[in-house]
Amino acid sequence: MKADRLQAFSDGIFAILITILVLEFKLPNYTKGHLFEAVLQQWPIMFAYLLTFTYIGILWLFHHDMFQHIERTTVKLNVLNLISIFLTTLLSYSMSLLSETLVTLNPADLRFAALVYSGLALLISGSYYYIYGYLSMHDEILEQDTGTRYFSASRTYPVFSMVIYLLAMIFVWLNVYLGLLFLVLGILNHGYSYLRIVNISKKESAN
Amino acid sequence: MKADRLQAFSDGIFAILITILVLEFKLPNYTKGHLFEAVLQQWPIMFAYLLTFTYIGILWLFHHDMFQHIERTTVKLNVLNLISIFLTTLLSYSMSLLSETLVTLNPADLRFAALVYSGLALLISGSYYYIYGYLSMHDEILEQDTGTRYFSASRTYPVFSMVIYLLAMIFVWLNVYLGLLFLVLGILNHGYSYLRIVNISKKESAN
Amino acid sequence: MKADRLQAFSDGIFAILITILVLEFKLPNYTKGHLFEAVLQQWPIMFAYLLTFTYIGILWLFHHDMFQHIERTTVKLNVLNLISIFLTTLLSYSMSLLSETLVTLNPADLRFAALVYSGLALLISGSYYYIYGYLSMHDEILEQDTGTRYFSASRTYPVFSMVIYLLAMIFVWLNVYLGLLFLVLGILNHGYSYLRIVNISKKESAN
Amino acid sequence: MKADRLQAFSDGIFAILITILVLEFKLPNYTKGHLFEAVLQQWPIMFAYLLTFTYIGILWLFHHDMFQHIERTTVKLNVLNLISIFLTTLLSYSMSLLSETLVTLNPADLRFAALVYSGLALLISGSYYYIYGYLSMHDEILEQDTGTRYFSASRTYPVFSMVIYLLAMIFVWLNVYLGLLFLVLGILNHGYSYLRIVNISKKESAN
Repeated sequence: MKADRLQAFSDGIFAILITILVLEFKLPNYTKGHLFEAVLQQWPIMFAYLLTFTYIGILWLFHHDMFQHIERTTVKLNVLNLISIFLTTLLSYSMSLLSETLVTLNPADLRFAALVYSGLALLISGSYYYIYGYLSMHDEILEQDTGTRYFSASRTYPVFSMVIYLLAMIFVWLNVYLGLLFLVLGILNHGYSYLRIVNISKKESAN
Repeated sequence: MKADRLQAFSDGIFAILITILVLEFKLPNYTKGHLFEAVLQQWPIMFAYLLTFTYIGILWLFHHDMFQHIERTTVKLNVLNLISIFLTTLLSYSMSLLSETLVTLNPADLRFAALVYSGLALLISGSYYYIYGYLSMHDEILEQDTGTRYFSASRTYPVFSMVIYLLAMIFVWLNVYLGLLFLVLGILNHGYSYLRIVNISKKESAN
Repeated sequence: MKADRLQAFSDGIFAILITILVLEFKLPNYTKGHLFEAVLQQWPIMFAYLLTFTYIGILWLFHHDMFQHIERTTVKLNVLNLISIFLTTLLSYSMSLLSETLVTLNPADLRFAALVYSGLALLISGSYYYIYGYLSMHDEILEQDTGTRYFSASRTYPVFSMVIYLLAMIFVWLNVYLGLLFLVLGILNHGYSYLRIVNISKKESAN
Repeated sequence: MKADRLQAFSDGIFAILITILVLEFKLPNYTKGHLFEAVLQQWPIMFAYLLTFTYIGILWLFHHDMFQHIERTTVKLNVLNLISIFLTTLLSYSMSLLSETLVTLNPADLRFAALVYSGLALLISGSYYYIYGYLSMHDEILEQDTGTRYFSASRTYPVFSMVIYLLAMIFVWLNVYLGLLFLVLGILNHGYSYLRIVNISKKESAN
């Protein structure tokens, strides 16, 4: 199979997923005349939505750039890609858990939500680690101007992310907000990694 | 990254967003034999849906035409585009607020809904203002037949829209229906602006 | 704007709309151990879903074939197309009304649902009548091998459909099931028309 | 009609369907501080989601590969394809039935859910059996390098699947978990068949 069809299919799923997140925003229960206050109380949904939209947006950028370097896919890459996308779709659920528990603020529930979100993020980074590893060993399916070195170099990014998410999962037991901070840092770090990967890519193609 | 992939991704999000708006239409509660009256009472949903469908439809036309003039994207344009689309997805929530408050007709709640919708529209126009500004300074990523002058000229449209939406947000405090009128005018004005931008575009390519 | 982008956008909306119809299927309330009976009671949802899926599927075929003959779009065609698609998205609501009232079987409510569905179908056929009329007068935007005669000939199909749906809306006052029968016939007739339009198209290209 | 447009439309529906499955995940009712336990109780949703995601993912791979061998479509192929996709969309409903009844564990309800899921899977395999049969008799619409023999050979896969799903539907009356096991095996078998079909395809193109 040509890689561009798998990419179009994956792009479609990313586009749908990022759009249906907004269905999470439902009108709050409110006393007549106090809609404003009720909507203000919904800030955790807004926060979780912004965080998850950003996260999925960056994941799309990564996913998209990765496929720029792939000419055709194999059965194994199809499966790895489906696993990665499967994990990504679950983000809408972890987003619900997070926004719900940021409203109730029950420590045990909030910790659980932070653990699920961070754990899922760790698994997603893990899926990219595997995919990069697979690509770094299969020169024959890459675009001609892409060396396997590009993907072996890229592997350090998901490893670094996995460490951050692991720390988030540990710190959440000390202080749940410290854990959440690391979760947010992990997602922001994806953006920073993306910038660096773009730069590597530019240098490679400049050689 | 080539601009056409970002465009396809954005097109997908616009298509999904405009379609899932219809999920807002739910069957009303009604007494057996009086479904007709109950559905009639839902006219605010119909109004808000028609308004928002029109708005997003026009935004898509703008977004689409803009990308016709862009050859490749940069990281900054990716980010600006994601912000613009993020704001656009929130329209489904402001639509819910508007249709809900047009049913209850509580003045404070209705004003709040009008403020949210107009404020969001203002931010969306602001995002186009920024993007046009960015494009007017980056000739190197534009299509060969497009001058930066095209985008600096286009900037007056979002500025004009922002003024209308700002007026809507001010007038809403005098009379909420006057504010809503300006909101509707603002959206209709997008349609008018689109016609004019199409004409500029034609003249440019005729030179 | 090139017609193929508008087509891709429209195709996306058709694909999303036809897929989210299935969200209408929700688990019924049931007594433990009697899920089977409860699901059986949901046959009206199944019927309305099958009908609407078929209808939108055929509309897509029509829409798709129409765009095969269009090379580029105009602002007016964009607007006509958005109106047609707007009406089409409302089918998910008329489907809900129909399946709901086929459960309660209240004559007044059922008649209302049949009127809404038929009226909407009439408007959708009307939108194609207008679009075909527009295309039959704008040879300059059609593909080279397509004559305007093709679209003036095609106009008889939506006219015929509009007559059937009008009859459905009249007969519904005599007997609601007779009206529903005409609604179903109208949708099946679209399929038949599609076969004939495909044949005209073949003959045209054979000349 | 060229086959690639029908394929793009079908790909879109697969992508949307596989993504909206996740909307099935709703936050559970829970006692404050016991969200973790409540989410754990949701394992049947997770199981049904994983199963259905895998199933639709593999169906997409099959569907996609099939269209690689088709150059243009006919009206009949359009209709067969829409029927196959219609059946596939219903999987989201059978998934809901399965996850619901794996929570309540009422034997009669669980058996019914297993019957619906297996019966639907049997019909989907049946639709591929018909489509392969149609393609094996219409050399003129296939890609030049594809022989009809490819599709007549492929027909054994859906037949084998139909037997497994039929066994699942029979065994469910002896022991519902045995029936479910066959359902899972049937889906896993699709994955295995996919690998074999890919191999046939490779050999064909090697000749």
